[in-house]
Amino acid sequence: MPDVVFKVDQSKSMWHQEAPGHNRWHPDIPAVAQVRPGDEFRVECREWTDGQIKNSDSANDVRDVVLDRCHVLSGPIAVEGAEPGDLLVVDILDLGAVPQEVGPAAGQGWGYTGVFAKDNGGGFLTDSFPNALKAIWDFHGQQATSRHLPGIRYTGITHPGLFGTAPSAELLARWNERERALISTNPDRVPPLALPPNTNEVLAGRLRQGSSEFDRVANEGARTVPAREQGGNHDIKNFTRGSRVFYPVFVPGGNLSGGDLHFSQGDGEITFCGAIEMGGYIDFAVDLVKGGMEKYGITRNPVFMPGNVEPRYSEFMSFIGVSVDHESNTNYYMDATVAYRNACLNAIDYLKQFGYTGEQAYLLLGSAPLEGRISGIVDIPNACCSLYLPTEIFDFDVRPGAEGPAKADRGQVATTS
Amino acid sequence: MPDVVFKVDQSKSMWHQEAPGHNRWHPDIPAVAQVRPGDEFRVECREWTDGQIKNSDSANDVRDVVLDRCHVLSGPIAVEGAEPGDLLVVDILDLGAVPQEVGPAAGQGWGYTGVFAKDNGGGFLTDSFPNALKAIWDFHGQQATSRHLPGIRYTGITHPGLFGTAPSAELLARWNERERALISTNPDRVPPLALPPNTNEVLAGRLRQGSSEFDRVANEGARTVPAREQGGNHDIKNFTRGSRVFYPVFVPGGNLSGGDLHFSQGDGEITFCGAIEMGGYIDFAVDLVKGGMEKYGITRNPVFMPGNVEPRYSEFMSFIGVSVDHESNTNYYMDATVAYRNACLNAIDYLKQFGYTGEQAYLLLGSAPLEGRISGIVDIPNACCSLYLPTEIFDFDVRPGAEGPAKADRGQVATTS
Amino acid sequence: MPDVVFKVDQSKSMWHQEAPGHNRWHPDIPAVAQVRPGDEFRVECREWTDGQIKNSDSANDVRDVVLDRCHVLSGPIAVEGAEPGDLLVVDILDLGAVPQEVGPAAGQGWGYTGVFAKDNGGGFLTDSFPNALKAIWDFHGQQATSRHLPGIRYTGITHPGLFGTAPSAELLARWNERERALISTNPDRVPPLALPPNTNEVLAGRLRQGSSEFDRVANEGARTVPAREQGGNHDIKNFTRGSRVFYPVFVPGGNLSGGDLHFSQGDGEITFCGAIEMGGYIDFAVDLVKGGMEKYGITRNPVFMPGNVEPRYSEFMSFIGVSVDHESNTNYYMDATVAYRNACLNAIDYLKQFGYTGEQAYLLLGSAPLEGRISGIVDIPNACCSLYLPTEIFDFDVRPGAEGPAKADRGQVATTS
Amino acid sequence: MPDVVFKVDQSKSMWHQEAPGHNRWHPDIPAVAQVRPGDEFRVECREWTDGQIKNSDSANDVRDVVLDRCHVLSGPIAVEGAEPGDLLVVDILDLGAVPQEVGPAAGQGWGYTGVFAKDNGGGFLTDSFPNALKAIWDFHGQQATSRHLPGIRYTGITHPGLFGTAPSAELLARWNERERALISTNPDRVPPLALPPNTNEVLAGRLRQGSSEFDRVANEGARTVPAREQGGNHDIKNFTRGSRVFYPVFVPGGNLSGGDLHFSQGDGEITFCGAIEMGGYIDFAVDLVKGGMEKYGITRNPVFMPGNVEPRYSEFMSFIGVSVDHESNTNYYMDATVAYRNACLNAIDYLKQFGYTGEQAYLLLGSAPLEGRISGIVDIPNACCSLYLPTEIFDFDVRPGAEGPAKADRGQVATTS
Repeated sequence: MPDVVFKVDQSKSMWHQEAPGHNRWHPDIPAVAQVRPGDEFRVECREWTDGQIKNSDSANDVRDVVLDRCHVLSGPIAVEGAEPGDLLVVDILDLGAVPQEVGPAAGQGWGYTGVFAKDNGGGFLTDSFPNALKAIWDFHGQQATSRHLPGIRYTGITHPGLFGTAPSAELLARWNERERALISTNPDRVPPLALPPNTNEVLAGRLRQGSSEFDRVANEGARTVPAREQGGNHDIKNFTRGSRVFYPVFVPGGNLSGGDLHFSQGDGEITFCGAIEMGGYIDFAVDLVKGGMEKYGITRNPVFMPGNVEPRYSEFMSFIGVSVDHESNTNYYMDATVAYRNACLNAIDYLKQFGYTGEQAYLLLGSAPLEGRISGIVDIPNACCSLYLPTEIFDFDVRPGAEGPAKADRGQVATTS
Repeated sequence: MPDVVFKVDQSKSMWHQEAPGHNRWHPDIPAVAQVRPGDEFRVECREWTDGQIKNSDSANDVRDVVLDRCHVLSGPIAVEGAEPGDLLVVDILDLGAVPQEVGPAAGQGWGYTGVFAKDNGGGFLTDSFPNALKAIWDFHGQQATSRHLPGIRYTGITHPGLFGTAPSAELLARWNERERALISTNPDRVPPLALPPNTNEVLAGRLRQGSSEFDRVANEGARTVPAREQGGNHDIKNFTRGSRVFYPVFVPGGNLSGGDLHFSQGDGEITFCGAIEMGGYIDFAVDLVKGGMEKYGITRNPVFMPGNVEPRYSEFMSFIGVSVDHESNTNYYMDATVAYRNACLNAIDYLKQFGYTGEQAYLLLGSAPLEGRISGIVDIPNACCSLYLPTEIFDFDVRPGAEGPAKADRGQVATTS
Repeated sequence: MPDVVFKVDQSKSMWHQEAPGHNRWHPDIPAVAQVRPGDEFRVECREWTDGQIKNSDSANDVRDVVLDRCHVLSGPIAVEGAEPGDLLVVDILDLGAVPQEVGPAAGQGWGYTGVFAKDNGGGFLTDSFPNALKAIWDFHGQQATSRHLPGIRYTGITHPGLFGTAPSAELLARWNERERALISTNPDRVPPLALPPNTNEVLAGRLRQGSSEFDRVANEGARTVPAREQGGNHDIKNFTRGSRVFYPVFVPGGNLSGGDLHFSQGDGEITFCGAIEMGGYIDFAVDLVKGGMEKYGITRNPVFMPGNVEPRYSEFMSFIGVSVDHESNTNYYMDATVAYRNACLNAIDYLKQFGYTGEQAYLLLGSAPLEGRISGIVDIPNACCSLYLPTEIFDFDVRPGAEGPAKADRGQVATTS
Repeated sequence: MPDVVFKVDQSKSMWHQEAPGHNRWHPDIPAVAQVRPGDEFRVECREWTDGQIKNSDSANDVRDVVLDRCHVLSGPIAVEGAEPGDLLVVDILDLGAVPQEVGPAAGQGWGYTGVFAKDNGGGFLTDSFPNALKAIWDFHGQQATSRHLPGIRYTGITHPGLFGTAPSAELLARWNERERALISTNPDRVPPLALPPNTNEVLAGRLRQGSSEFDRVANEGARTVPAREQGGNHDIKNFTRGSRVFYPVFVPGGNLSGGDLHFSQGDGEITFCGAIEMGGYIDFAVDLVKGGMEKYGITRNPVFMPGNVEPRYSEFMSFIGVSVDHESNTNYYMDATVAYRNACLNAIDYLKQFGYTGEQAYLLLGSAPLEGRISGIVDIPNACCSLYLPTEIFDFDVRPGAEGPAKADRGQVATTS
């Protein structure tokens, strides 16, 4: 096992760790550790809400989640010699749930998939499912099952939802400018269009609350929800073991931070809160490509090479969506978001014929190793997206046939009371 | 070889085939053949523009293409016993280029990838690449190479871009209503938002020009460019050998039509004109699930099971895009289309460091067996898409390294004169 | 389609083709065609027994087969510039059954799997199954079904059983010497230990029967059954589309010959007569590595790179065998042949619980895309081999469970009368 | 993490664990733990030689290994309700090296591949490589590198070499009878044909040395080297995460034991001492199929379903061997062992052209995730085997080309002094 450069005691909040992490992006958050090119090291992570979600049969905790505390990130970790313009090469050697423990923190033998309430974050299908929902998953090695989703067992593509380098002050300013401009187009929208800097529940590593540095981070620090130029919350399920990521470096040392580990996720993470969320560990090796941003034309986003140990599935039910609102008979010009939403809704309608509730199907799509693809993006006016659901994850035959679907009472997910 | 129920002489236009096909969707286009559930049969296809594009080193033919003639479809083929509400089960047993021939029609040993001029259709990146472009591909069994894209060789995932059942009169009316509404929001846009019915270059099977039936088809018939409820131009690269598609049936007999065969395509078919386009053949088996639309909740789009003989690649360069215009620093709320466009532009910038022109990279992305995935679709405000380009298709090392990219003069695609 | 350098009329015997092939290995069989490095070309092939086996429900034709006529090979094809010591690079661009025809010759829409009678060739399990057997397969694109094996459908890994270069006179002499020595250890064995040169039914290309050249070939020519230093009857199922083979060159021109096309085969081709046998076509590209045998240390056998379009299966029932005769309780020291035979017998016993006859299971194992692996080859005294049977090829659940196997009457293969 | 039912302190010999394991197969070795159908539990394992091999640059420890101490197994674990005739269903949920430790015992961040000296066990190629050899591997998540094999990095298919149920007294007697009969055919052979019961270094769980039970185990207990009817040392590399094994039950409780964990192995484990050997942990779930041996015809060997998370490689160099001794020009009738040995020797000769020593190539073939296949097993007189070596594991181009191999000084493995 490599050296642990960021330690987490899973019985404590991120605020009370020996060396706390952070929950905003800002160049002035000081590094908590330094590593060298060629080093291999371990980073331990809290579950992204810092333990607000419990292993229970009620979704009240999801309904009442304090989003300002999220994501709690481990880091920053400085890499010796990294300078703006370099590429930081990050190999994901291994990752997993909290090893050798069973307990109350997500990652200790279990994880969860949740959907936020519409008035507290929402989800991709919030118009159809406006209330908070939750499913609890039990881990069996690389496989997961849920008491809230009987008949389903799959191998997770375990990955971190969120890692990134620190933004420069200039890049941060650009983010704040454009996101404020977006919010101003509809400032009262529920859920909001974006999340501006916010001084509530700020954690900034070892910066002391009340210090001027802390206040600067609190006032300017970007929220961690979206992916941006330096990486961040990509939620790319294929960042799994064996992956190599090339992050742009914007500040001296690079300052790598992250967390939000997922035991599994479907493309899109449509449930938002979230994939199968857990705390745990991630092992990295790092290196540098000096001047790599210009050399390779990598300036707007990281580039990566996925690992080669994803589960091998060979049979899929694939659902198609096009950019049309079929209820109102409205066309959306080349809108892949609408198309993918329809593919998801089509999959949900299909699974309901087998006895799952819509809520169950929704949570399944957010967590299972399904693929969401941009299929046609030029055939005016309809974008076409498709969703590939492995049939092997069901313990019954989920394919269409002359005899009709095997309908059964399949329970329900955790809801609010 | 199964019986040929739709024959094509590749030396002749679709208008001059013994039994011509059609280029509009309309319930009144009569079936040209009837098959029974359980039957296996072959359908021969013209390349989608009916041979307007030549095996040449000029893109003038792409620039001047008459889009009103597209797509020329083979069919309709009626299935005995199919009734509205059924699912038509279509197995793709085999498909390929024109067998045993070398000649001037695309599919006769060669195919092409094109990009329309902005003022005649455009493409996904038309703002960056407003002019017509073309690359010619030579077929070597299941592999393709191009004199316009040296250093590249890949195995195609051969598939039909377009198959579908006939719409009912009611469904057709809904299409026309919603697409006209969309067009009316910006009727002078270049390229247009959608293509309304158009009496120019109409082909309606054996309906005689001048007949009232023909005129009805010409006036009401939906253009074939987008995918819609009955299937149509999905451009899903995974509709390959061994796939099973479940099409909703809207008219008695189902009336299956299609064509637009692709030797290969990248997810999104971003070049629009198009993947690697070819004429050829496709072998089907058909069956019915009586009442299957309601039984399985399949009402808005077809569902399919992809084949299991796609080429196996194991290493990818993956490019990420988020829904931001980085030039103007503008955020687009959860817009997967913008995110995927950025992933494409990032891939193009990367490939340019190796000596390819932007035009070459664009045509490569439209045709190679790359995957485009919806990665994060909830992390407000940024949708995140990713594009997986197999490294094995290049005959040089396309991965980043300390030594920098292997830059070389790699030629150029066909352009206009 | 590339130029056809070896043409076959499937309605005629190989003896009556315009340019006949051959059925012995000998350096003096003249080339029928010449190609150049870089060329792409097509070779048409007869089914290996030259049409002795019919699409019928009797195995009498298998029982009575004249083995001296086998294999009928297409070639030799000389490659310009090839010299002894070179490596002949052979790309398998494509291959398949007889295109665009349905008829009485294997390959015309159908193929067969057979087992020889013990007194006329035998098979891997001839002690358990001493009589001739046959199953007929119908082709559906890349998939096959058999009226003799209901409940099974699979995607074939289509490949040539046999291609090779011509031996030099010296190499041929070595073969004859060592095979005669082997035969002499038990000359009366049934089935024989090996097949010596034999003047019966000899075909030697355009050499006229009665000529001294013909007589030399007849008297010295090696039989085509085994694989040897120059390639030959490898029966490697992974020589499929996209493969590249490096053949040692022993005579000027290399003189490539082959045939014995298989629609599908299980590792080992345990049925002997054979996989799924068919006539058809194969498209090649050739090149040379000058002096490659020494450069790369490739002297005793060809080397190859398999293609990347094999069917993707993800779930297998795997059967294990060790080198023990369980009936007589006898140990065979590190004998992988015995171990693999036991793995096959274990699979047959298992499949019989589902209602297949042993004969059906035997023919299935010889033809389906199963993998046979050397697992442990050092753990004295027991070699351990394993056989991986994809579960997806069955239309019922073939996995063990608490409820016991789904037994049914599943018919029988063709037998002798 | 599931409950640990067999604990190992890696700083101590198996003899000194709180509850020691065993190193012979015998029905009278008492179970150390009992589990119930449906349980999930962890078993910790010592490296198979009990720590005789060190992380050093000398192979003296391999040369001097005391084989009578091997394999040290964890167990037996009784399963409540298991009776002779049942199938014991064993799911491998997870396994790995010793977690969270770096230290002197194999499995603590490192492992080794060794070859025994010919006069102390030998290996598959002992006639070519009669001396002891060793390579040390460092673990990087799921990947391994070796200072003794520069230029190579691969993802391991981690698996247990050895698990099995206890034999009944009757089955044990059959083993001893047949193995003694084999040994008696050549009792002085070096290396020996098989290993008979031997009272040296016997470990029998909590049975006290000197007790009559211990003496019975010592005198009758079968050595653990070969695979037999109840499982045992299969060395099947595909027993990886997600696998389900169906073991025959021969004694009440089943009494599952095992160990010999491998970080990686090539098919055949040709190096014998061994794959990449390590201690570590393995997580199981167990269940029963009552009366399953008869129900499913599983009597002679276990059956298994491999996991679906093996590393995905797509390009291979494949080496062929046939059952001929090319030096002496001798034919071995249908001998897959000879054929596979030749495939291995051919691969070694090939790799030597790139600058590896034969010793390095040998150790590579024993440890890397390569596949060894029975290709043709009926084409008299030559069995044909093939070996698939992934090209992606090399950091240079290992494919043949016109320019010749990239030869370099690539060091050497650890040898004896």
